[in-house]
Amino acid sequence: MGEAIGLRFQDPLIAAGVVGLTALYAARAAAPLEAANAYLRRIEGLNPLVNAFLFVDRDGALRDAKASATRWAAGAPLSPLDGVPMGVKANIAVRGMPWHAGIAAYKDRVADQDADCVAALREGGAVILGVLNMHEAALGATTDNLAFGRCHNPYRHDFTPGGSSGGSAAAASAGLCAAALGTDTMGSVRIPASYCGVFGHMPRRGLIAAARVVPLSWTLDRVGLLARSARDAQAVLSVCSDAAEAGPELQRAPVALAALDLSGESELDAEVARGFGALIETARSAGFAVKRISLPSYDVLALRKLCLLIAEVEGFVEHEAALSANPEGFSAALSAMLHWGARQSAPKMAAAYRRFASVAAQIAADLADFDAVVTPTTGGPAFPFNKAAPAEQADFTLIANIAGLAATAFPIGVDPDGLPLSAQILSRSEAVTLSLAARLATPPSPPERFR
Amino acid sequence: MGEAIGLRFQDPLIAAGVVGLTALYAARAAAPLEAANAYLRRIEGLNPLVNAFLFVDRDGALRDAKASATRWAAGAPLSPLDGVPMGVKANIAVRGMPWHAGIAAYKDRVADQDADCVAALREGGAVILGVLNMHEAALGATTDNLAFGRCHNPYRHDFTPGGSSGGSAAAASAGLCAAALGTDTMGSVRIPASYCGVFGHMPRRGLIAAARVVPLSWTLDRVGLLARSARDAQAVLSVCSDAAEAGPELQRAPVALAALDLSGESELDAEVARGFGALIETARSAGFAVKRISLPSYDVLALRKLCLLIAEVEGFVEHEAALSANPEGFSAALSAMLHWGARQSAPKMAAAYRRFASVAAQIAADLADFDAVVTPTTGGPAFPFNKAAPAEQADFTLIANIAGLAATAFPIGVDPDGLPLSAQILSRSEAVTLSLAARLATPPSPPERFR
Repeated sequence: MGEAIGLRFQDPLIAAGVVGLTALYAARAAAPLEAANAYLRRIEGLNPLVNAFLFVDRDGALRDAKASATRWAAGAPLSPLDGVPMGVKANIAVRGMPWHAGIAAYKDRVADQDADCVAALREGGAVILGVLNMHEAALGATTDNLAFGRCHNPYRHDFTPGGSSGGSAAAASAGLCAAALGTDTMGSVRIPASYCGVFGHMPRRGLIAAARVVPLSWTLDRVGLLARSARDAQAVLSVCSDAAEAGPELQRAPVALAALDLSGESELDAEVARGFGALIETARSAGFAVKRISLPSYDVLALRKLCLLIAEVEGFVEHEAALSANPEGFSAALSAMLHWGARQSAPKMAAAYRRFASVAAQIAADLADFDAVVTPTTGGPAFPFNKAAPAEQADFTLIANIAGLAATAFPIGVDPDGLPLSAQILSRSEAVTLSLAARLATPPSPPERFR
Repeated sequence: MGEAIGLRFQDPLIAAGVVGLTALYAARAAAPLEAANAYLRRIEGLNPLVNAFLFVDRDGALRDAKASATRWAAGAPLSPLDGVPMGVKANIAVRGMPWHAGIAAYKDRVADQDADCVAALREGGAVILGVLNMHEAALGATTDNLAFGRCHNPYRHDFTPGGSSGGSAAAASAGLCAAALGTDTMGSVRIPASYCGVFGHMPRRGLIAAARVVPLSWTLDRVGLLARSARDAQAVLSVCSDAAEAGPELQRAPVALAALDLSGESELDAEVARGFGALIETARSAGFAVKRISLPSYDVLALRKLCLLIAEVEGFVEHEAALSANPEGFSAALSAMLHWGARQSAPKMAAAYRRFASVAAQIAADLADFDAVVTPTTGGPAFPFNKAAPAEQADFTLIANIAGLAATAFPIGVDPDGLPLSAQILSRSEAVTLSLAARLATPPSPPERFR
């Protein structure tokens, strides 16, 4: 996959990303300990500007980097991630590190076992730098976390990085890690990828196990990943999941792309509309057959409410014991949402799940004729913390959580204020979303203060 | 499949069952109109003894039988059911016939379209005789229906035929139809098959679509069928579903059978224990490898409650409008159960579905080493209406509803009082459950007053 690259990070170890770093290791042009030190130095100097990392395991990272260096020196790396410094969202268990899901009630909890996806990273030799900030409980998309401090957008201080995986996106964007794990319930990997100018990939339902990942909603949640290129995202995915399961590459030409139009239901900022229009033209010029479609089975307002119901009820089940034992350990806003979930009725919930399953089947049927669907990721770019999050924030991302599809958000340049814009590709195949994202992306230059 | 046969019905058209009848048609030894007339005459004379048929479409049956006769005369039958007289449970839509699910509130509703499974029967040329009695709303297993009259066990008046497909089992057992459709939520095809000495087959989850079947629980329900032999059941299944989807035949020898032991959790009557023990010996003598197992993932008491919760909540969703518009259209007992469901909370329901999915996966994993599982169908034989239904009635049948497996209940002789006993085979493959049931069954003679 060839990708257009703008300005790069000045430090070649940081600019290298995931795939470039292991290429340097293989060529003996760099060693894992140097890379780990370079990232740790950046975290020390630059993390205070964004508050992406909430915990850094300096000693563990250096120890693991040394072990990786020994393997590379012996010409025996464990995987395409061996010696690659990564960050992990605070709701995913990393043994020996805080595992609080951004909730004060769990601030002293330390994971005694790795989540399955983290265990896969470790078996692949990845170096875990530490734990990343997130929106409290993953229920929200600003990462304005009262208990652990807000996480800032690397492109603009006092602007949201998005959420709930805001720390993961900010850290990848600011070059504080080569790639990061996140989770996505209604868009929680792709919304922050959109606001921070990076790639965010949510695998299709069931590809990555969620063992020892604090659920917000076991119906909607998926583990995903954030990186600075589609190739890097592909490398992480290949280690977190069985690479053979990435799905088929595109078989036919021209590629049949559906461009989803939600106008009348969910509006786009003028700059997003312009950027998305340009993307469609680029795709057509590249020889893709692009058809503008609407999706009548996707009733935006009703499904937004439906998925919030599912998340708030399932979130209550997950946190019920802590809500009762330690009510001050939850923000008033989160507590209100979860208690609202608690007051809903069993028949309402049963009907909601039934509708969810039927809409998922209908969306899949409606999209069956296309290789992939392309949509804007978010209706607008990042916004300041003093502005309320738009109600439409997840209208495009939610589709894939309902339909079970893989989705890759990718940057499509910046708006006149220098804020990143983004689109996403949805498909049944990870190989399709990642390869199309690579071909269609226009990654922005790194945020100025972090170059 | 060879099957042991006891005394038969005196009328060869009735004794022939499904497969025998079409063999007679093919040999021009009988014609569909004779068979339809024979069954209609029996219904007229004998149905009052059991109250299995609640509605008979004499004219439609004769018209369809004539059309079938024309096809057979031309040597062009539509399917292995062409010209076979069948009955349909009252919760499955048959165009132009009552479709009330045994609930007084819907007593005047007439289906304006066939259920998918009925449409498949019609496309196969089956002759639909009429609509069969059932336990009100399918929530219960005695078919002591206050609104439409109780359905009696053909082997013993004033004894239950089981339920909820009590009319389907009684009609098949008494020779009032060649085979019948039923539905199974926690055992509603297999429990009445057990009490009435016939075969009851519940296909694996998803095999037969449930469109236009009044749900009790869309999570648990499946359309199933009742017949007097495994071959007959196989013939009906092949028309209701894609025959190619019946699953693989048994590949290896010896067949690895798990004999499930729930002792300490769900007790067996002495006669059932004796009959089941004899069945295991028969299987061993036939060369099967039979291992007695317990199933720690199957917590009988907890799962009985869990599935009742699901059924009562989903049942409330289904009937909410009618409960509100016409509360006297529901028995006090049913109304109380559904309103109990309405009062439960959304988090309780969300947790229940989650546990259901996790137990289903665990049971499937626990049984992965076996070709099939054999269990008693019910802990005891049919009981009188003046005795309460045992709480353990569905303890063995429920396993397949949770785990998504195919299950065939088959007769294993009678107790000293002449009441039928039954066992069931569970497997991922329909071909396995039906072929093993055929090999292991000991069908009783037809009930005395119906021979």
